[in-house]
Amino acid sequence: MQVYTTPKLNKVEVTSDFWKRYRELVVKEVLPYQWKVMNDEADISIADDPQNNGEDKNSHAVANLKIAAGEMKGHHYGFPFQDTDVYKWLEAAAYSFGYHPNPDLKKITDNLIDLIAKAQDDDGYLSTYFQIDAPERKFKRLQQSHELYTMGHYIEAGVAYYNATGNQKALDIATRMADCIDSHFGLEEGKIPGYDGHPEIELALSRLYEVTKNQKYMDLAHYFLTQRGQDPAFFDKQIKADGDSVDRDLIPGMRDFPREYYLAAEPIKDQKVPQGHAVRVVYLCTGMAYVARYTGDKDLLAACDRFWNDIVKRQMYITGNIGQTTTGEAFTYDYDLPNDTDYGETCASVGMSFFARQMLNIRAKGEYADVLEKELFNGALSGMSLDGKHFFYVNPLEADPAGSKGNPGKSHVLTHRADWFGCACCPANLARLIASVDEYLYTVNEDTILSHQFIANEAEFDDGIKVSQTNHFPWSGDIHYEIKNPNNASFKFGIRIPSWSANYELSVDGAAKSLPVEDGFIYLDVDGKSVTLDLKLDMSTKIMRASNRVKADYGKVAVQRGPVVYAAEEADNEAPLWDYQVAADAKTDYHFDEKLLDGVGVVKIAAKREKLDDVNAPLYTEVQSEDTENVDLTLVPYYSWANRQDGQMRVWLNKD
Amino acid sequence: MQVYTTPKLNKVEVTSDFWKRYRELVVKEVLPYQWKVMNDEADISIADDPQNNGEDKNSHAVANLKIAAGEMKGHHYGFPFQDTDVYKWLEAAAYSFGYHPNPDLKKITDNLIDLIAKAQDDDGYLSTYFQIDAPERKFKRLQQSHELYTMGHYIEAGVAYYNATGNQKALDIATRMADCIDSHFGLEEGKIPGYDGHPEIELALSRLYEVTKNQKYMDLAHYFLTQRGQDPAFFDKQIKADGDSVDRDLIPGMRDFPREYYLAAEPIKDQKVPQGHAVRVVYLCTGMAYVARYTGDKDLLAACDRFWNDIVKRQMYITGNIGQTTTGEAFTYDYDLPNDTDYGETCASVGMSFFARQMLNIRAKGEYADVLEKELFNGALSGMSLDGKHFFYVNPLEADPAGSKGNPGKSHVLTHRADWFGCACCPANLARLIASVDEYLYTVNEDTILSHQFIANEAEFDDGIKVSQTNHFPWSGDIHYEIKNPNNASFKFGIRIPSWSANYELSVDGAAKSLPVEDGFIYLDVDGKSVTLDLKLDMSTKIMRASNRVKADYGKVAVQRGPVVYAAEEADNEAPLWDYQVAADAKTDYHFDEKLLDGVGVVKIAAKREKLDDVNAPLYTEVQSEDTENVDLTLVPYYSWANRQDGQMRVWLNKD
Ligand SMILES: [Zn+2]
Ligand SMILES: [Zn+2]
Repeated sequence: MQVYTTPKLNKVEVTSDFWKRYRELVVKEVLPYQWKVMNDEADISIADDPQNNGEDKNSHAVANLKIAAGEMKGHHYGFPFQDTDVYKWLEAAAYSFGYHPNPDLKKITDNLIDLIAKAQDDDGYLSTYFQIDAPERKFKRLQQSHELYTMGHYIEAGVAYYNATGNQKALDIATRMADCIDSHFGLEEGKIPGYDGHPEIELALSRLYEVTKNQKYMDLAHYFLTQRGQDPAFFDKQIKADGDSVDRDLIPGMRDFPREYYLAAEPIKDQKVPQGHAVRVVYLCTGMAYVARYTGDKDLLAACDRFWNDIVKRQMYITGNIGQTTTGEAFTYDYDLPNDTDYGETCASVGMSFFARQMLNIRAKGEYADVLEKELFNGALSGMSLDGKHFFYVNPLEADPAGSKGNPGKSHVLTHRADWFGCACCPANLARLIASVDEYLYTVNEDTILSHQFIANEAEFDDGIKVSQTNHFPWSGDIHYEIKNPNNASFKFGIRIPSWSANYELSVDGAAKSLPVEDGFIYLDVDGKSVTLDLKLDMSTKIMRASNRVKADYGKVAVQRGPVVYAAEEADNEAPLWDYQVAADAKTDYHFDEKLLDGVGVVKIAAKREKLDDVNAPLYTEVQSEDTENVDLTLVPYYSWANRQDGQMRVWLNKD
Repeated sequence: MQVYTTPKLNKVEVTSDFWKRYRELVVKEVLPYQWKVMNDEADISIADDPQNNGEDKNSHAVANLKIAAGEMKGHHYGFPFQDTDVYKWLEAAAYSFGYHPNPDLKKITDNLIDLIAKAQDDDGYLSTYFQIDAPERKFKRLQQSHELYTMGHYIEAGVAYYNATGNQKALDIATRMADCIDSHFGLEEGKIPGYDGHPEIELALSRLYEVTKNQKYMDLAHYFLTQRGQDPAFFDKQIKADGDSVDRDLIPGMRDFPREYYLAAEPIKDQKVPQGHAVRVVYLCTGMAYVARYTGDKDLLAACDRFWNDIVKRQMYITGNIGQTTTGEAFTYDYDLPNDTDYGETCASVGMSFFARQMLNIRAKGEYADVLEKELFNGALSGMSLDGKHFFYVNPLEADPAGSKGNPGKSHVLTHRADWFGCACCPANLARLIASVDEYLYTVNEDTILSHQFIANEAEFDDGIKVSQTNHFPWSGDIHYEIKNPNNASFKFGIRIPSWSANYELSVDGAAKSLPVEDGFIYLDVDGKSVTLDLKLDMSTKIMRASNRVKADYGKVAVQRGPVVYAAEEADNEAPLWDYQVAADAKTDYHFDEKLLDGVGVVKIAAKREKLDDVNAPLYTEVQSEDTENVDLTLVPYYSWANRQDGQMRVWLNKD
């Protein structure tokens, strides 16, 4: 396996209208709003989240840090991992400085770094729950404690903040945490031969390694990945030693999940398919991909490939959402993809984006970039409202307010985004993805620049190379590149041909050119001073089907245009939405509506609608010829659903 | 409203081959097996039931009575309503004596009556949990205690046993219970102004009234029905007074259900649709129908009509199963009829049969008898295996072992019948229905005998009237009646024309006759010495659809022949079963296979089957022309499913 060197990409400025809107939204709405919430200054209602947490309608996340720092009195409030809300927010803020300098915000974040430094113990430990209320239980119930998960999130934030601002203190906090963890965990005598119930530290240590180049952190990440599951009873033994009573559980009910939920039933290298909590899976996979690349560990790479393959080919929704069940926020089994009871946590789609990005760093394979794009334009993005102040935890592909209210099996499926959650993992997670989307556009190895996303940007590389990509993607598939290579450097420029665009046209400096597609990319040798590329992708509206191994989608079709998956909403179409049938070759019409939903491409598709049966008719009758009318269904992008009045939504439409 | 007098029907002997097999099975297998289980002498595994009860794999039901009677030492074990398993079994045994005298069994049941008498307190109270372990808490936590439910079940059994054997002691226990309850409940000073969380006592008191003619019992039943929900906080107040701590709950988790679950949120007369626990609903409705008939209470009758109408027209599966969600074993909302997560408790179908029978006593309406027939041949009957020793609690209309194992939202859906359950309400409930099915065949008022079921039988009425019905129903629709009327009595004979048989032919003494169908019945005046009737019902195989307001069945068809609903099983058809399409006018073929499943009518239906997609194919692709082959699907009666190897099953098939 080829180990790539550090990317030589220096700077990317996102110029895409679509993404600039979201990124400015992060600056203007999301960050200020979330800061208020975490300081308990927002006048909001905190939704019961899908796991029925958050009853007390508070965040207290900043207050916990102040108490730990000695600036306030009181007890810890919230989940043991409440600190991570602050860290993910800090990380998002750090990224935002890269495209939107913001002295007022920077004052807040610099002060926050000072607060975090003050809250950190002398030995580097930082997890406010344990510091405030249970110092004697540090690292003693790792199944539930999220301590490494929590510090991992800080490490990510610290690295990002250091990269963005040069704040050395931010990085020092991170290295001191990592050193603390290193001193406590490992197979050496006197250390804990374990790991956190929630993977995260592995990817965080990898990022710390990237900035510090300290091999110790890579070794520690490798240790956590290979030690995991070696002793399947590790968590049970810890709980027994810490006091077996359920009263001592940090998160009620968590002990009842099977070991597979924690990816701790057996060593990862022996695990055949991803099982358990979806976010844990993709965070673990991201860590594995990092560590496999830096260490050459073939077992870890094989596990990445196995898990990737199973998720993408057999357990992923067409929107990129993953995790089919609310019970344990987990994967279920291959081809089990129910649309109206799914979980599809926003964090899982964010994590899948991380995983895809790291797989691209290992191999130039279009499939990874296809999935990344799918998440960016669908499954992850749907986690936030257009106003930046409402969030989905669960992302269904079919929703009905009557079902969410009336059938307890669907009570986790909201049909409107909430202000906040008791377990508020998702909102800031999505914010940091959006704020750092510039880092997801290129993958660079020694001789190749891979341009795998069609998010318009201006990029600067070593040797004075500049790439300018302009387009109106995702609404238009006309992609224009200007590559400047003033020093006549010699490199390959790879462009992804998306799986949704089997047909495309390319012209180089105005002349049509045909290039072979290799693993989803076309490659062009660049050695002149400049080159202009024009790529025309196939933006025809596609009527899609799922594998017929998927029971839930059998006899149904979905509509996709470019990477954007469409949904029918009751706001545009008369309910019930299941009472329409779309032919496999239905006529479609596309137009961009700049006034609708902050500007979206709208698809109209010809459909047949059955006359609705009378409420007093018998419930079951002999089949009869259908009394139908021809109507157009109006479809909007999936990510934009639930931004108008409450109502039904569905991605999969009945096939005529 | 007309109040009918006590039916003048004297005796019915079931001669139907189909039902004789089941009724002998009750005698030879079901009763001995269940007696062993309740005495903890059966070497079985008790399944985790759908509510995750029964972890300790024991019944202890008879032992509890022995402890209460002072014949054994020890604590109560099981649910507070554990006694009811014994009472329902006793009731079934009592009915069985009517068609299968059984001195050995009668010794056991006479001894059991003695044991129960001994266990009963001097004041008539009997609920072994409270007698053994919590005498100070009698009637103090009625939300959960099931005390009246438990005594109600004894009252039903005692009445049945007295009717079958003349055992006065059996009836005396019942009247002493009723007197005890009467002395404790009511609006008078010093009495409890409440009712049981689980309706049952109302129908039991009605049956006691029928045999004793003691108006006090009817008044008490009427009190329970009209008092219910008058003070929505009644249960909460009791719990507060009894000690609010959850540790004092009799059934953990029960307090968390909303008041609607207990039908106690408002007076029944104000409740618009049935909500909450399905078995509670239909037991309550049965009691209301009894009491409405005997008291003329129009509010209660209106509630019966309202609830009936909503259940049958908007919340019932095609098999007659009711209760769409495992959460609270409850109804959800109109037209919400998911097939693979439904509950459809066997007890709920048994209770729906009770309700239908009582509605027939109020009005001669074919719809009631249609539903009764639907339950008898489908939803209720599927609760027991062909060997009489395995039982379903939950009756799904679509099942897949992979889903039951792999998706927690379907973990309550077993794909094989269990030996027994921790909460074992269903097995003996179905046994008592089968053993008393002779009581469900006729409804008699002063001048009319309604023959509303096509279960072959010989019936004797007053005035020497005899009706003999012979047929091979449900496999054949040729129904032959011989009516003997030696004393030239004058009466009407009504025969139901089932809703599934719009077409029928009737001949009277060999001559074709056309009669108007009035509310589902045709009526014939009988005044001669004898008459012979031949009815030919439409037994063509029908391809059915659901109202298109039902999302779960949209684009699907089900197959029905006569009253029997069919299902496809993996035992006969290659999986996956969703990968077949059936045309609305598909060719069907029917044959009776006496060797299969103890003799069933088999339907073959022409279908198209798609070639299954490769496991390594992309999960989502553009629609393409389907690669199908023509195959026949083999369907067997729904009640007979899961009697062979484990596998998929579905009632609703994809429509081509
Ligand atoms: Zn989340
Ligand atoms: Zn039951």
